[in-house]
Amino acid sequence: MFSLPTNLKKIALFLERLPGIGQKTANRLAFFFLRLPEEDLQEFAENIRTLKQRTKLCQQCFNLTENNLCDICLDKNRDQTTVAVVETVIDLLSFENGNIYNGVYHVLHGKIDPLNHVGPDDLKVDELIKRIKDNNYQVESKIKEIILATSPDMEGEATAIYIKDQIKKIDENLKITRLAYGLPIGANLEYADYMTLKKALEGRGKL
Amino acid sequence: MFSLPTNLKKIALFLERLPGIGQKTANRLAFFFLRLPEEDLQEFAENIRTLKQRTKLCQQCFNLTENNLCDICLDKNRDQTTVAVVETVIDLLSFENGNIYNGVYHVLHGKIDPLNHVGPDDLKVDELIKRIKDNNYQVESKIKEIILATSPDMEGEATAIYIKDQIKKIDENLKITRLAYGLPIGANLEYADYMTLKKALEGRGKL
Repeated sequence: MFSLPTNLKKIALFLERLPGIGQKTANRLAFFFLRLPEEDLQEFAENIRTLKQRTKLCQQCFNLTENNLCDICLDKNRDQTTVAVVETVIDLLSFENGNIYNGVYHVLHGKIDPLNHVGPDDLKVDELIKRIKDNNYQVESKIKEIILATSPDMEGEATAIYIKDQIKKIDENLKITRLAYGLPIGANLEYADYMTLKKALEGRGKL
Repeated sequence: MFSLPTNLKKIALFLERLPGIGQKTANRLAFFFLRLPEEDLQEFAENIRTLKQRTKLCQQCFNLTENNLCDICLDKNRDQTTVAVVETVIDLLSFENGNIYNGVYHVLHGKIDPLNHVGPDDLKVDELIKRIKDNNYQVESKIKEIILATSPDMEGEATAIYIKDQIKKIDENLKITRLAYGLPIGANLEYADYMTLKKALEGRGKL
């Protein structure tokens, strides 16, 4: 059987490891690479080559950055006293793209998931606790609220509850909130699951 | 608004140009790159960097190769007298992956498509005619059959008819065939379009 040139095959095999990309798509993408301008390929190769060495984690919130602190932590126009705890940088981006939040973040880099052997020690929980502790001595930027913005599934819930308990141990009075449950905008009641409906009913607001 | 580190953003923007990949998927893939082992990224970058310089077209059939002639054209165990004319290397791979064909190929690198400004001169048609001509003087490996394996759509049909006419001009007696039309295996008659059904009816075989 004929096989593709080594480079092309290796690129296809690499792409096949990416989430949501099967063998056929990987081949198709590799072929598409061949048709791109040489300089674009060179630039892409260079970006991939230096990706890890140039992309670091913010020392305060563990967002991605090229420096020691990320743009959000350095931004004086943002409310540095409200911290949203998110699972991933992608979740952080969802808030940022919506332009709906002016506080800062703390990225956990995962959620507690015993089935996949992810425990609290694998996440940036201790770093969050330390951040709250260290912050307590600062007058101006003392953290006033922690928003637990982990995902509304079992693991996200467990993570939120665990973090709440940890915070309570060091600061009984810190305001801790959780994102609201309810019907997503544009949804059809007919297709809502009963747990979501129950939560929407419990959390109903006055009109 | 927060923006991603430069490298990551450029990688996401590059991936967004690939067919079938939108902004969200491109971001997700770029983040996935970050989690891959450093050596895998280095190897991938190197393969991308040298992709074009190491991948050439076979001088006989225009398949992809790292040498002057591709493995298929060099393979003495294959029937060098039967040539399947395909549009793309991906189509060639479909035959090869199925292990259903033991002849050789001629890759056109496209199909006649006036709406997209692709004419016969943009394809490897002249090269095919030259290949047939040159081959006529060889006794052992004289081409006996040309299988027109272009796609069963309007452009593929036009390309097949054009090539047939060109071949007839230089060799009236060369056997020229076209892939059969009919129902695909596993298909449901209910969902077959009427043109396919008509072709399947016309080409019906004795049981």
